Amino acid sequence: MSLTYLYQDRFVSKEELQISPEDRGYYFGDGVYEVFRVYHGRLYEAAAHFERWEKSAAALRIPLPLPSGELTGRLEELIRINGLSEGTVYMQVTRGAAPRSHPFPADTKPILMAYTTEARRPLNTMKEGISAVTMEDIRWLRCDLKTLNLLPNVLAKQHAVDQGAGDVILHRNGTVTECSASNIMIVKDGAVITHPANHLILHGITRAVVLRLAQGLGLSVRETPFTLKELRAADEVFITGTTVEVTPVISVDGVPVADGRPGEITRRLQNEFEKTISF
Amino acid sequence: MSLTYLYQDRFVSKEELQISPEDRGYYFGDGVYEVFRVYHGRLYEAAAHFERWEKSAAALRIPLPLPSGELTGRLEELIRINGLSEGTVYMQVTRGAAPRSHPFPADTKPILMAYTTEARRPLNTMKEGISAVTMEDIRWLRCDLKTLNLLPNVLAKQHAVDQGAGDVILHRNGTVTECSASNIMIVKDGAVITHPANHLILHGITRAVVLRLAQGLGLSVRETPFTLKELRAADEVFITGTTVEVTPVISVDGVPVADGRPGEITRRLQNEFEKTISF
Repeated sequence: MSLTYLYQDRFVSKEELQISPEDRGYYFGDGVYEVFRVYHGRLYEAAAHFERWEKSAAALRIPLPLPSGELTGRLEELIRINGLSEGTVYMQVTRGAAPRSHPFPADTKPILMAYTTEARRPLNTMKEGISAVTMEDIRWLRCDLKTLNLLPNVLAKQHAVDQGAGDVILHRNGTVTECSASNIMIVKDGAVITHPANHLILHGITRAVVLRLAQGLGLSVRETPFTLKELRAADEVFITGTTVEVTPVISVDGVPVADGRPGEITRRLQNEFEKTISF
Repeated sequence: MSLTYLYQDRFVSKEELQISPEDRGYYFGDGVYEVFRVYHGRLYEAAAHFERWEKSAAALRIPLPLPSGELTGRLEELIRINGLSEGTVYMQVTRGAAPRSHPFPADTKPILMAYTTEARRPLNTMKEGISAVTMEDIRWLRCDLKTLNLLPNVLAKQHAVDQGAGDVILHRNGTVTECSASNIMIVKDGAVITHPANHLILHGITRAVVLRLAQGLGLSVRETPFTLKELRAADEVFITGTTVEVTPVISVDGVPVADGRPGEITRRLQNEFEKTISF
């Protein structure tokens, strides 16, 4: 059975959906996106994703074709049509198609599409942890916007693959920012530490959930930059993200984190996270 | 008559050319491009453009579907088919279509397309000059690669439009780099000064031509970073690029450059440039 896409406000088969070569998403990466997690056929943290979606689009001055309330309904219908129980919904909007010229074109209709993908939770890596390698963060200075300009993230992730690692830990001149497509946190002396949600990192939905859970557990939470040196001296390291949830990092550049096994606080946060998705 | 595109190694009508929603150019901006100037039906500085094309593609590890020699022939045929005398050829290649996942997919066929656009030389702004406004350069740190991640350039150009200016002059912490889609040079005490061709700027083909012309005129040429302060104290300011050629900048942030008229050395370089295109 062919996958159904949402295209503008209509449902179409994958085969019907064709993109114009003049789509500014194709020429310039001139668009924004979101990836939602679906558990038990339902969108997880939908409101937070739509808030970020609206913020990214507003920063690029891309008018959204559908109000978030209406779009939520369309995505729920898409999930139903495609019979998705566990997986993701990818959604993007571009500024639209127009003859190639850098400035915003007048009267161009933004192009929205969304589709579903079946995906299991990464139970194995969540249990066993992953290895990570460090790499200079060379991205632009608006990493808080979830745009289609993802080439540096692609190159970073490929670097991890080339090195046989699970992910890349990015740093700017020694200050750790985030990973190729997830946020990173360390635990030191019982405190959970992560980069502040400023222009240098994506403001992860799972990041925010996990920080709330940590506070709920009575843990000290510090949103403050930390260095590669502090990363290497951490008691625990883990990443957070829509698809990775809470995944331990057990080695950095080939050197074990602490005793090389997922840490206790990471486990507790995983357990708390588990409760939030058991609706 | 419908415009003909080059798509892979075939010629197709614009209407026939449809892009997959799974093209990594669309998801990630995972591709590179070139814009050639066409004078008298011929590609200008084709060898230099292909050299940069190969360099950008190699840096991203995108295998090129056609060797440059063969592609040159195809572009020449495209120019002939579309009856182009004066204008541009836009050419891009993406890593290809694959289910969305950051790392390079295995066995994906890169997607090449090219088309022509009629465009007159900007004789008026070349004669009268343009105004420019300054703006922080927030791009990534591989601006030497001509990739499809152009959102910062789009936003910069739109900033110029919003300010009623002809272009934006970008700077990193006060060091001038380039413009939204062209290089910038200043003249001070008879010397032509421009940012070095490192990872912070695109290595413009016209930039290289103009530096050679300046040397041919016996002018002092310095490829060295200069500041906003030096920009404002310059005797002359001009930009170089495939479509703008050599265009004077006569004001910066509303303040005239020197006496507010195109400078003498800029004029001499324009004249020399003119000779290179009169083949």
